[in-house]
Amino acid sequence: MESKIMEIAKAVRPLDGKAMEKAKKRQAELAKPPGSLGKLEEISIQLAGITGKVINEMKRSRLIVLAADNGVVAEGVAATPQSVTLAQTINLTRGITGASALAKYFGDEVVVADVGVNASFHCPEVLDRKIMLGTRNLAREPAMTREQAAKAVYTGIELALDARRDGVDIVGVGEMGIGNTTTSAAVLSVLLGLPAEETTGRGSGLDDEAFAKKKRVIDSAIALHKPDRNDVLDVLSKVGGLDMAAMAGVYLGAAYCSMPVVADGLISVAAALCAVRLCPNVRGYIIPSHASYEKGYSAAAKELGLEPYLKLDMRLGEGSGCPIAFRIVEAACAVMSGMATFAEAEINDDYLADIRGNEDKRF
Amino acid sequence: MESKIMEIAKAVRPLDGKAMEKAKKRQAELAKPPGSLGKLEEISIQLAGITGKVINEMKRSRLIVLAADNGVVAEGVAATPQSVTLAQTINLTRGITGASALAKYFGDEVVVADVGVNASFHCPEVLDRKIMLGTRNLAREPAMTREQAAKAVYTGIELALDARRDGVDIVGVGEMGIGNTTTSAAVLSVLLGLPAEETTGRGSGLDDEAFAKKKRVIDSAIALHKPDRNDVLDVLSKVGGLDMAAMAGVYLGAAYCSMPVVADGLISVAAALCAVRLCPNVRGYIIPSHASYEKGYSAAAKELGLEPYLKLDMRLGEGSGCPIAFRIVEAACAVMSGMATFAEAEINDDYLADIRGNEDKRF
Repeated sequence: MESKIMEIAKAVRPLDGKAMEKAKKRQAELAKPPGSLGKLEEISIQLAGITGKVINEMKRSRLIVLAADNGVVAEGVAATPQSVTLAQTINLTRGITGASALAKYFGDEVVVADVGVNASFHCPEVLDRKIMLGTRNLAREPAMTREQAAKAVYTGIELALDARRDGVDIVGVGEMGIGNTTTSAAVLSVLLGLPAEETTGRGSGLDDEAFAKKKRVIDSAIALHKPDRNDVLDVLSKVGGLDMAAMAGVYLGAAYCSMPVVADGLISVAAALCAVRLCPNVRGYIIPSHASYEKGYSAAAKELGLEPYLKLDMRLGEGSGCPIAFRIVEAACAVMSGMATFAEAEINDDYLADIRGNEDKRF
Repeated sequence: MESKIMEIAKAVRPLDGKAMEKAKKRQAELAKPPGSLGKLEEISIQLAGITGKVINEMKRSRLIVLAADNGVVAEGVAATPQSVTLAQTINLTRGITGASALAKYFGDEVVVADVGVNASFHCPEVLDRKIMLGTRNLAREPAMTREQAAKAVYTGIELALDARRDGVDIVGVGEMGIGNTTTSAAVLSVLLGLPAEETTGRGSGLDDEAFAKKKRVIDSAIALHKPDRNDVLDVLSKVGGLDMAAMAGVYLGAAYCSMPVVADGLISVAAALCAVRLCPNVRGYIIPSHASYEKGYSAAAKELGLEPYLKLDMRLGEGSGCPIAFRIVEAACAVMSGMATFAEAEINDDYLADIRGNEDKRF
């Protein structure tokens, strides 16, 4: 499994520099002050690097949501009961959660995959990719084995490849898993060499006591398991989560098949960092969305050089920023394909003579 | 004309507090951590205050673009020739400029009104509401008469009322007018009591010398005309623009007929400030979009208490932030109407028994 992942990672191409140069040139020709469309220009150039084409269209967009439980909730680090993971995993397929209601409204596809929900259930709308019934409690033992972590990553790769095969143009990465702000903070602490204090937020709403405990749990788990920060699978297996591991796989898979992939909030950028550490070329395929309120997000985004352009004070998770980010990416495409160049925007003299009256003395 | 404006201003209702309370209550019942959808929640509550309804739909959105020329360009304060105003005014109706390409892609209506382009022309797609052939050069004389300023404001009011009559649910305000970052900075300097240094940016790309001149022109025009900062029409007529005045009218008119109105960049927030100074109740109807790169934007946004949620480094004008902001407003509506409440999100025991297998030992 691990060698398969490494094969994929090795095959990810750097962005197409020639296409990006052409896209830059085209942006400079469009009738507007240079650079005046800011991030929309940047995204259009990035898309050219990803697809190799200057003009891109995002006809089909898919939100891939990875669901899994985390044994660490036994420590009281989450404000929400574990049963909510299962309930919301199912609700995501019905379009009635935050992210899925948005996706439904905008016509984005939603694929929900169970990679480790702590319940055996049969809901045909949820893809059954279960690796285990939730992770172990990382406060006491490694969250999972290295093989399980690798299997989760590979599952994510496959989901991205499925999307490409289905004709999807862009994917977003979301998650559902009570306790996953703890695992994300833990993974970020290891990968960035930061104490829990600098990576940990209150998740869905911890009080002071539980918040202090959450940070203690993270710091001592890292001290206990001593994950190797240069070995992503070691980190993921010891203090990570199945959702995050699979999300890292989605980034890898999307990059492997030259598809742009939108990052969402904290868990999403933690997974993105894992993917980029496994394969630095992945970075070019990632498009940020909103700046999560959760601490740790900024540290990860900074490390990845991602500048989120949506400041919506959101911290819901599920990939809820993706349906909004898809619209921004569409906007970037619409500018590139729809705007006139300076040459095309010129109102030539014949036309002006035709439409302009005679009384104009000042023009 | 002025008394008609004041009548409209007096008739603008404050936001519907009861509907906002109901909307807040509904947001608290939706299955998510409290406040976790941030600005989307805030916008949905604001919309309830505007329309009086908790569940809102934005089926028809319209970008209203006001086009006018500014005599002050004779001072060399703009990097772009004046003829571009006419060319882009026409191009806006063809969906090939930045804002109109975005609007076309997303299916937003675009209404372009000429309130003072410095050319007499006959283009049936541009509404002819011309008040004069561009303003006078404010460096030497007042930009227009008080009556002309009032006529421009009233024209904007009528355009908003037309939108409502056509069944539009939300409008955005854009502009096209070479030289209007100068007039906007001048109006903001007066209304905020700030020197040009703190309100003036480089517009579409001035060099150092022209930029310094632009600031000198603004400061000395204000010293010359001494506009009364407590009299918006005096300020607009002396150092403003026809586009800005009409935009202020759109805000007033939208608020008058209980319609949300999206502000765009610098000129748009300068106009919004004019409208709010004419009628403080208008503030509640304004929804921000992106944070413009132009200096002056932040000062105006701060004064208005507008927190832009899009950081796209855009400074194109035309209302180019509106088609993106409309999507955010739609997202706010989709959350309010599409998400399940905690009660609805519960997976009841019968259903669980049905979907859950027997091997679950930990749930």
